[in-house]
Amino acid sequence: MRSDADPASRRADHPASLRELGELGLIERIRQAVTDSSGAPGVRTGIGDDTAVLGLSPGVALLVTTDLLIEDVHFRRAYASARDIGWKALAVNLSDIAAMGGTPRWALIAIALPAATDVASVDAFVTGLNEAAAPHEVAVIGGDTSTSPHGWMVNVTLIGQHAGTPRLRSMAKAGDAIVVTGTLGRSAAGLALLQAEAGERARTAVPAELGEELIRAHLRPTARVAEGRWLGEQAAVHAMMDCSDGLGTDLGHICRQSRVAGRVVLERVPVAPAAQALGRALDKDPLPWAVAGGEDYELLATCRPEAVDELRAGLLAATGTPLTAIGEITPGAGIRWVDGRGETLEIGAGYEHFSSRR
Amino acid sequence: MRSDADPASRRADHPASLRELGELGLIERIRQAVTDSSGAPGVRTGIGDDTAVLGLSPGVALLVTTDLLIEDVHFRRAYASARDIGWKALAVNLSDIAAMGGTPRWALIAIALPAATDVASVDAFVTGLNEAAAPHEVAVIGGDTSTSPHGWMVNVTLIGQHAGTPRLRSMAKAGDAIVVTGTLGRSAAGLALLQAEAGERARTAVPAELGEELIRAHLRPTARVAEGRWLGEQAAVHAMMDCSDGLGTDLGHICRQSRVAGRVVLERVPVAPAAQALGRALDKDPLPWAVAGGEDYELLATCRPEAVDELRAGLLAATGTPLTAIGEITPGAGIRWVDGRGETLEIGAGYEHFSSRR
Repeated sequence: MRSDADPASRRADHPASLRELGELGLIERIRQAVTDSSGAPGVRTGIGDDTAVLGLSPGVALLVTTDLLIEDVHFRRAYASARDIGWKALAVNLSDIAAMGGTPRWALIAIALPAATDVASVDAFVTGLNEAAAPHEVAVIGGDTSTSPHGWMVNVTLIGQHAGTPRLRSMAKAGDAIVVTGTLGRSAAGLALLQAEAGERARTAVPAELGEELIRAHLRPTARVAEGRWLGEQAAVHAMMDCSDGLGTDLGHICRQSRVAGRVVLERVPVAPAAQALGRALDKDPLPWAVAGGEDYELLATCRPEAVDELRAGLLAATGTPLTAIGEITPGAGIRWVDGRGETLEIGAGYEHFSSRR
Repeated sequence: MRSDADPASRRADHPASLRELGELGLIERIRQAVTDSSGAPGVRTGIGDDTAVLGLSPGVALLVTTDLLIEDVHFRRAYASARDIGWKALAVNLSDIAAMGGTPRWALIAIALPAATDVASVDAFVTGLNEAAAPHEVAVIGGDTSTSPHGWMVNVTLIGQHAGTPRLRSMAKAGDAIVVTGTLGRSAAGLALLQAEAGERARTAVPAELGEELIRAHLRPTARVAEGRWLGEQAAVHAMMDCSDGLGTDLGHICRQSRVAGRVVLERVPVAPAAQALGRALDKDPLPWAVAGGEDYELLATCRPEAVDELRAGLLAATGTPLTAIGEITPGAGIRWVDGRGETLEIGAGYEHFSSRR
């Protein structure tokens, strides 16, 4: 969010507002300030991973995650329908459970709506929620409702189960390969299409079918639940998380929490063909969508390097989803982006989400 | 929220907006629309009680509840400090676990704040949260953060455990006595003091100590966790819930979900002495604060009538908290308010929260 040249960062020790502290700073501040939960009974993993992990009965861990979706922060009603919002509110939580290798089970839905909200919108919201929940047989077991003074706010809490060892961000080892499921960049490209700034030129730049694919990827992302479960069962897979904030930011989390460094070969990043097509049509490099855009909800994992071929074939056979090796974990800290010849690339101003490069 | 004379209620079958549907209508609509969870694996109690109940391992039920706290809906920053908000966000969830007779254990905190929020406020929020959590050794295990375009929004999800039979709203039986812990009316009286409309006259009407007690009851309510656990262990106690929406509304929930009627002797309702004092000073009947004000977070229960004396003595000995019998459960539907001689009292316009009298 800010560079070293920004005066705000020089005041980081005594930030006055959240604008200066940043989201990571806020989370870290809360984590340090709340009564330490690491030694609390039943807590296997507390604040700082995709989900919390509770060990309550032998052999089965409980995964718990919660996500806010707020109008004009996470979506705009100008382009997101109530049904889209219902879908996405559940999908982003499904993705957190998937990232641990778990099975999503029970959801609680807290929703605040303006009093003037039409009831048909509420029905559509629930329809979207049901559509996202149905493939995974997630049961909605509770929630809360409130009026909202400004716009929609949705908070979904999702509980899942895991019969083995949940995959944490902190499990990467130097020497691991970095792998990612599916392709990246569709969600950010879809957002570019949706945002007014893209205008009519963008809307007509690619065939309608491709445009719909991109927009759908942004509004109705699919959580990689089966993929997460399959990968989480493989002993060769070490760290795992979902790509929600962008490859750079998310790999940064893995590296920081595993106390290792990452080296990504940019040419290997699987940029989605539809995003490439939109990039060509707009004369715009699609790579930033893929590495910094976020919200693709693909899974990012590290694994034993000799297992990559086997994992790729196995995941494809089990789920139909491709797996791509994009780099490696090394000793050290931070992320290095290199080209095909191993030359370090400077990724500068355009990649403002790269908190790992601050 | 509306009477039968209101044209809106005549359109109740086809409400256009949430203003017409109302909160109960919204919850019922969502409950009916979401994929039915009652038969889902592990679900013992779904939508519609203080908490959801999951039966995952033999002998221990998991209780899960979630509550929204939204600026200018649930509180105003003009009178609620960040520390108050942190306290209350946890306390209202503690109260839901208490209402089932459970033990609160793990919390997830989702918080959306304007970017201009000063960091000291965040620290104060966490301090309040910790203060509410500490007596119960509740561990914060996760959460989410976001910027907010308008004001503070907090959503706390709390997970508890229960080794016996959680007490549900649907467990009341005709013939039961209706009992309530502590006293009622302090929270609403405190709110009256806090709200500008009360003005200086109210602020100086009662001694500072009483005023502080009332304001504290509103801003820093104490969940009756020990009381809920003790009452929940007594076989004589049937239905239980917390008094969050006001005695009339909450007893209405118990009656509707138990398919019984309630008869409350208004003179027996334990109006808090501090609320009585403020009422006298303002020449205002304090009874509406006690029966319709809500947010006292006392426990409302039904029990075998012959057990009342024993429960009263036992609860006082175990927790120091009084228990008062205020009426009885009868066959039928709805709530009847009577005076000491058994004459039915008409409680009219002033009690707009009385959804049971719609």
